[in-house]
Order: sequence, then structure tokens, then C-alpha cells
Amino acid sequence: MKTKKILLNENQIPRCWYNIAADMPNLPQPLINPQTSKELTKEQMSMLFAKELVEQEFSRERWIEIPDVVRDLYKQYRPTPLVRAYDLERALDTPAKIFFKNESVSPVGSHKLNSALAQAYYNKMEGITKLTTETGAGQWGSAMSIACQYFGLDLNVFMVRQSFEQKPYRKVVIGSYGGKVHASPSNLTQYGRKLLEEDPLNRGSLSIAISEAVEMAVTEKNTRYTLGSVLNHVLLHQTIIGLEAEMQMEIAGYFPDKVIACFGGGSNFSGISFPFLRHRILNGKEVKFIAAEPEACPKLTKGELRYDYGDSAGMTPLIPMYTLGNDFKPEQIHAAGLRYHGGGQLVSQLKKDGFIDSLAISQDETFAAGLLFAKTEGIIPAPESTHAIAATIREALKAKESGKSEVLLFNLSGHGLLDMSAYESYLPGASLLK
Amino acid sequence: MKTKKILLNENQIPRCWYNIAADMPNLPQPLINPQTSKELTKEQMSMLFAKELVEQEFSRERWIEIPDVVRDLYKQYRPTPLVRAYDLERALDTPAKIFFKNESVSPVGSHKLNSALAQAYYNKMEGITKLTTETGAGQWGSAMSIACQYFGLDLNVFMVRQSFEQKPYRKVVIGSYGGKVHASPSNLTQYGRKLLEEDPLNRGSLSIAISEAVEMAVTEKNTRYTLGSVLNHVLLHQTIIGLEAEMQMEIAGYFPDKVIACFGGGSNFSGISFPFLRHRILNGKEVKFIAAEPEACPKLTKGELRYDYGDSAGMTPLIPMYTLGNDFKPEQIHAAGLRYHGGGQLVSQLKKDGFIDSLAISQDETFAAGLLFAKTEGIIPAPESTHAIAATIREALKAKESGKSEVLLFNLSGHGLLDMSAYESYLPGASLLK
Repeated sequence: MKTKKILLNENQIPRCWYNIAADMPNLPQPLINPQTSKELTKEQMSMLFAKELVEQEFSRERWIEIPDVVRDLYKQYRPTPLVRAYDLERALDTPAKIFFKNESVSPVGSHKLNSALAQAYYNKMEGITKLTTETGAGQWGSAMSIACQYFGLDLNVFMVRQSFEQKPYRKVVIGSYGGKVHASPSNLTQYGRKLLEEDPLNRGSLSIAISEAVEMAVTEKNTRYTLGSVLNHVLLHQTIIGLEAEMQMEIAGYFPDKVIACFGGGSNFSGISFPFLRHRILNGKEVKFIAAEPEACPKLTKGELRYDYGDSAGMTPLIPMYTLGNDFKPEQIHAAGLRYHGGGQLVSQLKKDGFIDSLAISQDETFAAGLLFAKTEGIIPAPESTHAIAATIREALKAKESGKSEVLLFNLSGHGLLDMSAYESYLPGASLLK
Repeated sequence: MKTKKILLNENQIPRCWYNIAADMPNLPQPLINPQTSKELTKEQMSMLFAKELVEQEFSRERWIEIPDVVRDLYKQYRPTPLVRAYDLERALDTPAKIFFKNESVSPVGSHKLNSALAQAYYNKMEGITKLTTETGAGQWGSAMSIACQYFGLDLNVFMVRQSFEQKPYRKVVIGSYGGKVHASPSNLTQYGRKLLEEDPLNRGSLSIAISEAVEMAVTEKNTRYTLGSVLNHVLLHQTIIGLEAEMQMEIAGYFPDKVIACFGGGSNFSGISFPFLRHRILNGKEVKFIAAEPEACPKLTKGELRYDYGDSAGMTPLIPMYTLGNDFKPEQIHAAGLRYHGGGQLVSQLKKDGFIDSLAISQDETFAAGLLFAKTEGIIPAPESTHAIAATIREALKAKESGKSEVLLFNLSGHGLLDMSAYESYLPGASLLK
């Protein structure tokens, strides 16, 4: 009988993360300190982030060792399975071979824990006692909440008000692990109070929540900020996804022609892509990388490459990246994790240099894809992940038309069991439902 | 570094289910047809269930082959991991070694799919086009819904009204896979209409929902009923849990001293227990089996062993079992899957013969246990599964007192991500939360 899941053992969990900065033909422009208009220094960045994370942010070393404690905690859910989507292939009647990396098996149901554990660990090692962060969909907030619980750290999560109200169970998940969660904008920060004065009904955004979390981190004692995407060190931690997938694809006997992931700030996309991209950069392997964005927030597809703030209030360094502007207000789509205005430093440079393709997909198309996936492969995907599935289905149907037996690999960044309200509002109109 | 998860490959998925009826020292009394007051015949039972399932219900063969198609679908999530709960052990400071079988990794988040796939398959093979079932917590309804989707069968799910309203997302999950879900009592059946006339606010119960599903199955064309627990053939399918666990414990180098599971109608309990129980029956292995019940519904702990109906209306055969009475109305505890009045034929006989111990645990104790588990092992358990965890914690603390390095194995029957409303109402008073 056919093998469906390619598994690895715990001793095959990679010992290092892969830092693509070591291999990029063109390094991105530096981060800029808006107060000095000069390159941001490590010292300045350390006001916000643990020192070791700042070292990783600036590092040009190819391999960065995963601490034993973090690797040990990874065993709670890693290595994650690589799965051959035979049933989806059959439903699409495509000659394409579709594989997906199943990051939904983590306790919080997404890839976010890969970086949360690392970030909590380094902060703990440096004597930090309290962390702050933001969360859109709630995946990152949940992941940080477990991670902080493991290391005995206090956590304050600023959750986009829209999600806070739409996803009541996410708050309970965060609370069950011991994290404190606040609807953003909140009355806890100066910036939040200012916004609420201007508009008491402000629904919030990821970039507002970041501003609040940053403000709390810099104003409270022994506190640091943590971010779930965009920055180099976060993308670095997520490369464990692609490094495992590389071994697993080898066991399966294939190398992907196309690697596909949804794109919010780049964490799951970079995680699965960078280890394969290294073979294109170093050995000229023919492999494409497709970032699937929502039509409502197409920063890579329609944004402009320039310096921009990472947050709404302008409290972060200036980042050279594809951006829709830090005051961009995306529609209230269900994939809250993709509603971020910028593409980050590394991905933006790689896109500029022609290594990354992107496309923007409508919410209707992504939910139809998500339902087809649920009905064939069993797993109800996170609204974010449905973008990767929709893009994969497009490629599989193209392969059907051209008769090519392409190998497609996508990242299932998370499951949707805590996002059923999104499916509920979508279900009646679902074209693929019947 | 220590191994946390013991994994098996897909080719190690067992080829047969284990039928404990082949090895029981005393077979249970037969099912009785209440209309004739005589033993129920296979023909009579086939009005309700697929013929092959009826054969399994009456079978005395030790090993029953798993059809290739079912085994192939099992690969979507099986073999499930066996996990060593190092972090829970550390938190309890116990010399006990705690293992759990993680059935929460299935697409619907519980063990229920193990039998749903088999039941849908046999019905399909026999030309049945439509199935009915009941669901309490929603786990079984979700599992049947995926299974029917895979085999192109229509499905009507009668969901206990209390759960229907408390767990809105479960309905969406069932609907996403294409199942139709109705609050029970409903207007779709004669029995449901009668109950609603008597009390329009009737909150429903599992045994009422069973009556409705049975009524629809016998009155509609080419339709059969499916049950998620209690009956021998359902318990049979679930033995795949214990058969895998047996191989995994051997790899870990241990044999359990105690096997623990929560108990509703017996499906997950029997699934993990029966394969180990065979070593006690056949080889005198010293191993205990503990069924963890809610105080609100302690059928094994406080019920009476006698013939009783499986449902509220008295439409099922009479079953010789420990029962609280088919009109028993348990409190509205969150573990809706454990609110069933009877213990089934096989488990009841084994309990009578001294092979099974049971205990009843308060909701407060189980939720505290569930939160401690989430905070140490990462996974938020289903309210049902928290009973197994609470019982395991009791045993681990006893082991600490006596200094015994006992080996405890429990079944994590499911995760609680679709039951966060239960955690929400529990959280403020949680003694282990801080």
C-alpha cells in the first residue's frame, strides 16, 4: 500500500536553523533607526529584544545551533509529518504530486510555536521576567503563551480587537496557558488610549497591536518584546520546517518543483522555502517559490519596496520592505494572520532579486479550497493556510492542463478548529460544499 | 537526549482488530429483543446495522481483519504517537512513569474516527446510501461526517440540544464535512415531536438522540443507524489504539502497571485496555484497568448490573449492563461524551468478573487536571479526557507516597480546542491555574 505520511524520528530534528543571509546574492539594506536616521545598532535593538535574538537578527552565519532545551521542547510535536495529498490529487484529477508539511499538529495548531519556544528561552536565559507581544488570528499569542508557561515568564498579549471579539475561544486558549490577553487598542498604553479617544470603536490592526506591545516593553521593568513574524530571527527559527521537509522529500524520492505557502509577515513562508531556496541559490536547482497573499492585503504583489515602519505608531525601526504603508487598513477578512502591511527585509530582497513569486487570491477562492481540502484530506485548515491550498490547487490544475507531473509542496501552517466562526459565515455560499 | 514520542510507521498499522470476546472467561448474557423477549437474532439486528457489523457484534473470532480501504484511510492520522509525559511527571514530582496515547491527532481531534471509517465503509459496501447517528460532545458526529464524506454517504446527526447550543463550532465542523446536524429532540421524528410537545425546552440527552437516530434509520429507505460506543463492534474497531500502544510500550521498554481511560460508553476505554487485558487473561500479567467516570454519571461505579435499553424511548435491544437507568438525567457537565447511562455488554461483564476498576471524579478535579496537563504537556485535553488525566494524577501521587516507580498508561482520547467554552466557564475557579 502507498505511504501517506513521511515521518522522521526525534533524533532527526535538525540541530541548527538555516540562516539564508549567509547565502543571499544581495543582502538587504540595513534597518534604520528613525531617531538618528542611521543604521540601527545591536545595542539599540537590544532595548526591545533579547541580546541573543539581536545577534541572530544581524548574523551572517549559515547555521545557528538550536539550544538543547528548545530542541527538547520541539519533541512535543516535532518532527511534523510530510504528507502526500493523494485524495486531493484524485479530487483534482491532476498528474501533479502534492505534498504538504503538516505544521497543524503542534499543541496550539500552528507553526508559531517553533519561534515562540526559542524566543521565550533566550529571554529567560538573559534574566528577562516579562514579555509582551501582539496577535492577530491568535495563533502567535497562543504559542507565546505556552512558551512563557514553560519558562515561567509573564506574558501580555495585545490582540487585535476585531479578532478578540470574533474569536472568543482564542482568548480562552491563551488564558488556559496563563497568558494575559487584552483587546487592542487598549487602555493599557498611551498609544492605545490616544486611539480610543479618537475612535472608541477602533477595531484595531496588527500594526496597532505591535505599537502597544512595544510601548509596554520599553516602559516596564525587565520586559522585552517578541514578534511572531517579519524579522530575520523569527524567520530563522521557522526554517526548521523546511529543513525537515528537505529530508522528508528525499525519503519520498522527490525534489519540489514549486514550494508554496501563505504570506502574512513571512514566517511560515520563509520557514518552508529558505532551505529549498538555498539549493537554487547555491546549486542552480530549478524550483519556484510562491507566496500566496489575500487580495485584501497584497503587499508583495502590489506593494512598493521602500523603508517603512513595522507598526502603526512608528515605534519600530525602519525596515526596507515591500509595503502597503504602515497606515494601510485591510478589509476584515477571516485570515487575520495575513493582514499585515509589510513583507520584511529578507523576503523583500529575495523577491526583488527574482527568487520569489507572489499572487493575491480572493477570500471566496481560498475558503472553497479549504473546504475541498477538508473533504479530501480530513483536516480543516486555518483561514491563513487556505491561501496556500488555493495556490496549490491553481498549480495542480495548470499541471493537469499541460499534462506535467509536477511536484508541489505546500505548508499547512495550521488547522482551523479555533476559526470555525470564519467557516460558519462562509458555509452557505460555498461553491465546493455540495 | 530523551525520547518523548514513540512513533510507528504506516506499515506497522495493525492488520486486524482484537476481539476480546474470544478470550473472556465468561461471555456476557445475550442481547434481548424486547418485542419477543428472546435472544436478539442477527437478522433482527441487521434492520439497524450493516450486516458485516452485526457479524462482528456476534463474533467470537480473536482477530478480525481490517479492510485495506479502511487501513489506507487510517494513514491520514495513524499510527498515533505514544508520548512520555516527562513534564507532567516533573510537575507532580512522581517516580511514576507516565505514558499517554495521543488520539487527539486525528483530523477531528479524537479517537472516534477509528470506528467511523469502518462503519461508513461496511455500510457503503452493502449498498446503504444514508446513515443516521447521534452525538453528545460532537466528537462522534464530526467523525461520522468525515467518514460519510469519504464514502459518499448521506448523514443525519442528532445532536443533544444542550451541546448543540453550547458548542456552536461543532455544528460548523460537521457541516464543513457535509453532514446534516439537528438539535435533539427535533421535529424530524415522532419521538422527538412527542418530547417537544411535553416540554418545548427539553435539553436532550444522548439516549434521546439515539432514539431519534434509530427511528429515522428504521423508517427511511436504504438507511442504517451507526453508534459511536457501547456496542461490541464499536469497541472492536477501537482496539487499534491498544494494539499500537502495545507495540510502542515494547519499544519504550515497559509494560504498563495501570491502564487508564475515561468512560462514557466504553469506546476509548476498551480501545486502549482490551489488547493489554488479553495479557492478563491469557498470561496472568499483573496490570490494572481503571475507568474514570464523572461523578455526575457513574454507571460502573454506582450503577446496577441488569438488562436495560440503550436509548430513552426503548427502541434498542435490551443490553445486559451496568446502568443508571435509561431515563437517568445526568447533570449538565461539560464532558458531554460521558453523559451516557450504561456501560455496555463487554465492559460490564469484565467489570463483574473483577478485571476492571472504576472511579468517579468531580468536574472541578478533572478541569484542574486538564489545565495542569495543558501547562506541562502543551495539549488542551477534551473535557472527557481530563477524567483520564485526573485518575492518572491520583495514581501518580499515590506512587509518590509509596515511592513506587509504577508505569502508568492513559489514553488521551481527544483535544479540547472545540470545547473552549467549557474551559472558559471553568477558568476563574481553577485551583491549579495560577
